[in-house]
Amino acid sequence: MAVGDVTMPLMHVVQGVKIGSTEAYVRYPNRRDLVIFEFAEGSNVAGVFTQSAFAAAPVLISKKHLAESTSQQQPRYLIINTGNANAATGKIGYKNAEATCAQLAELTGVQTSQILPFSTGVIGEQLPIERLLQGIQPALNDLNADRWADAASGIMTTDTTPKGASEQFELDGVSYTMTGISKGAGMIRPNMATMLSFVATDAPISRELVQSLLQTTVEHSFNRITIDGDTSTNDSCIFVATGLAGGAEIAAQDDPRYQQVLDVLARIMNRLAQLIVRDGEGATKFITVQVEGGANTQECCDVAYSVAESPLIKTALFASDPNWGRIVMAIGKAGVPNLDSSKVQVWLGDVQICLDGGANPDYTEAAGAAVMAEKEITIRIDLGRGTAKDTVYTCDFSYDYVKINADYRS
Amino acid sequence: MAVGDVTMPLMHVVQGVKIGSTEAYVRYPNRRDLVIFEFAEGSNVAGVFTQSAFAAAPVLISKKHLAESTSQQQPRYLIINTGNANAATGKIGYKNAEATCAQLAELTGVQTSQILPFSTGVIGEQLPIERLLQGIQPALNDLNADRWADAASGIMTTDTTPKGASEQFELDGVSYTMTGISKGAGMIRPNMATMLSFVATDAPISRELVQSLLQTTVEHSFNRITIDGDTSTNDSCIFVATGLAGGAEIAAQDDPRYQQVLDVLARIMNRLAQLIVRDGEGATKFITVQVEGGANTQECCDVAYSVAESPLIKTALFASDPNWGRIVMAIGKAGVPNLDSSKVQVWLGDVQICLDGGANPDYTEAAGAAVMAEKEITIRIDLGRGTAKDTVYTCDFSYDYVKINADYRS
Repeated sequence: MAVGDVTMPLMHVVQGVKIGSTEAYVRYPNRRDLVIFEFAEGSNVAGVFTQSAFAAAPVLISKKHLAESTSQQQPRYLIINTGNANAATGKIGYKNAEATCAQLAELTGVQTSQILPFSTGVIGEQLPIERLLQGIQPALNDLNADRWADAASGIMTTDTTPKGASEQFELDGVSYTMTGISKGAGMIRPNMATMLSFVATDAPISRELVQSLLQTTVEHSFNRITIDGDTSTNDSCIFVATGLAGGAEIAAQDDPRYQQVLDVLARIMNRLAQLIVRDGEGATKFITVQVEGGANTQECCDVAYSVAESPLIKTALFASDPNWGRIVMAIGKAGVPNLDSSKVQVWLGDVQICLDGGANPDYTEAAGAAVMAEKEITIRIDLGRGTAKDTVYTCDFSYDYVKINADYRS
Repeated sequence: MAVGDVTMPLMHVVQGVKIGSTEAYVRYPNRRDLVIFEFAEGSNVAGVFTQSAFAAAPVLISKKHLAESTSQQQPRYLIINTGNANAATGKIGYKNAEATCAQLAELTGVQTSQILPFSTGVIGEQLPIERLLQGIQPALNDLNADRWADAASGIMTTDTTPKGASEQFELDGVSYTMTGISKGAGMIRPNMATMLSFVATDAPISRELVQSLLQTTVEHSFNRITIDGDTSTNDSCIFVATGLAGGAEIAAQDDPRYQQVLDVLARIMNRLAQLIVRDGEGATKFITVQVEGGANTQECCDVAYSVAESPLIKTALFASDPNWGRIVMAIGKAGVPNLDSSKVQVWLGDVQICLDGGANPDYTEAAGAAVMAEKEITIRIDLGRGTAKDTVYTCDFSYDYVKINADYRS
């Protein structure tokens, strides 16, 4: 179903991270729908969350607990359920998420504020809180370092493949591991590409840098993918550094190891983000929209998103139709101030379709059609007004997109 | 195909307006694809146009000619072709549009700047300029006051129904007529809901007020509809007052007749705009998104568009699935600053689905499903933070939407 190579790699163990799961029957039977992460004491934890004004109860609590944490008392556990998003659930939903944290804290002897909760699934229904609380001890009993692949499967909803990335790397002669998982592309209902991602390394990275590394890399990975333009109420991404593989702490950006860790994290995050697009609802193609020659990054992103989210372009991509009029339409509507269309160039793959704002006289429909027949397509746009550039990843819009989202809930 | 009653009314003649058309074979044979409007001398003409940075050559020229016009020398003719948008066509496209105006000016003895050109159809290809020029005289020979219905059909592309509205009204005992046509919902290619609309009255309205009336009513009609969120390169709307039915000129907003004319125009424009949505590509339902309780109009519109353009909501509407989690998702992502979700109420028709940001305990799935089964559905949202309100009209997203836009050009 997913586009291109989405194989799960060997998921290397991260020292200081254990994962357990259980079948809590949140919505469906026979699913390991409750996952717990345990981080060794002293791990530095960072998070980024949805910007939605309807942020779910677990998002509000995770943000609160992270904000209250100190370097001595950081999050030690993540508790994740699928099947129910605990969003638009009011005070009851908030209390339920708090109760989950309290129970896990009691069973593990940490503070409630050291628990970060996550939920994904149906919006507007209350959690089956009794079943969830009953599942915590069995999930704890299951804790084991070698459970990353299980966790990737456990957090799936309508994803068609589990999503993981893992690398081993060396800094100043010390070996480290970074491993992460993500989910997204759909939920059982309401099917809105709810995104969760959890990445851990055993490299020693200071608390401040864990947060800045996460923000930097999210900006160019998860914040650059779009399937339907719809932002979920539950999006969350967590990065943790346990430091348990040894070495001196990386505490400043001028530490030469900082750039190396940034590169590894950027690769992991990009892979996890792109896996979500490759598994996009009904996706048959993986699309890269590259915008360059902008006056600033914002306008490059505005143009890239305008192209990546245009239903007319996405259906043309599905049809392998090199219908480039739709691309200039989307550039035109992106709101770039005083854009001079006569300086705009557009390529489909290596084929220049639009030259100086008009049809490229050398363009042939056959050349365009050959690019559009591919499963992975790059649309490159030069705005001709500066040196800024940015890239957004998306997928096409197929009959199956409508089918997946229009089928009545069964 | 279109949703609800889209019957063309009796299209009353407007004194001072004549319309002619001919088969110019712009793209397909046997279509009256060239339409000319003639306005009596002394008519006051106003126009509004696409905001696209890739505005088509005819849009650029129409804007220029309107800007250059004086009260003594206003536009006298509109020349409209379907089958080719003359957009993204560079200098050649611009010269072609100028040549069309020059030829029509020569044949009618007016200035070139008194001609406004309009094109709709495929983007990025040059006009078949010889055939177009040859069609002008036959179209002029056809000029007749009683051709509004023909013109509504002539400007259609993939529209499934011609779109017209017409009213007779009285101001201070004098009888007047206002008649208009629109097209949109798709083009042969690239199918982007390109919108054209032409409205005329024989009421005497000053040049300044013609423009302000147009802007006021467009803002709440054509600027409040969305089918796919994609703005075309060719959108244009023209309003003309010939004054030939007599009476003193309406020259100030405190003239009691001003509000009456505004009401008629608003009704005509709303009807013409909503007809486009009812004929939206693949549409099976007509949706009204009403947002109230906003701090200002802008945030009401932001929320309404976020709901109206969400593919997840549009597919749920197609499926008649009262999946209200998707509606709060779209409210949440609309970017309203500091929105307090606990004050948000949502209704599907008369059924309150969301109470104070959470599920309404009295809501039943059966009640929601009954509303969703209708062909015309109102989604009403109260943001609970002020008195501003606004409304946006849209349609659902069906298999046919993908089919219409993904079918390879034949």
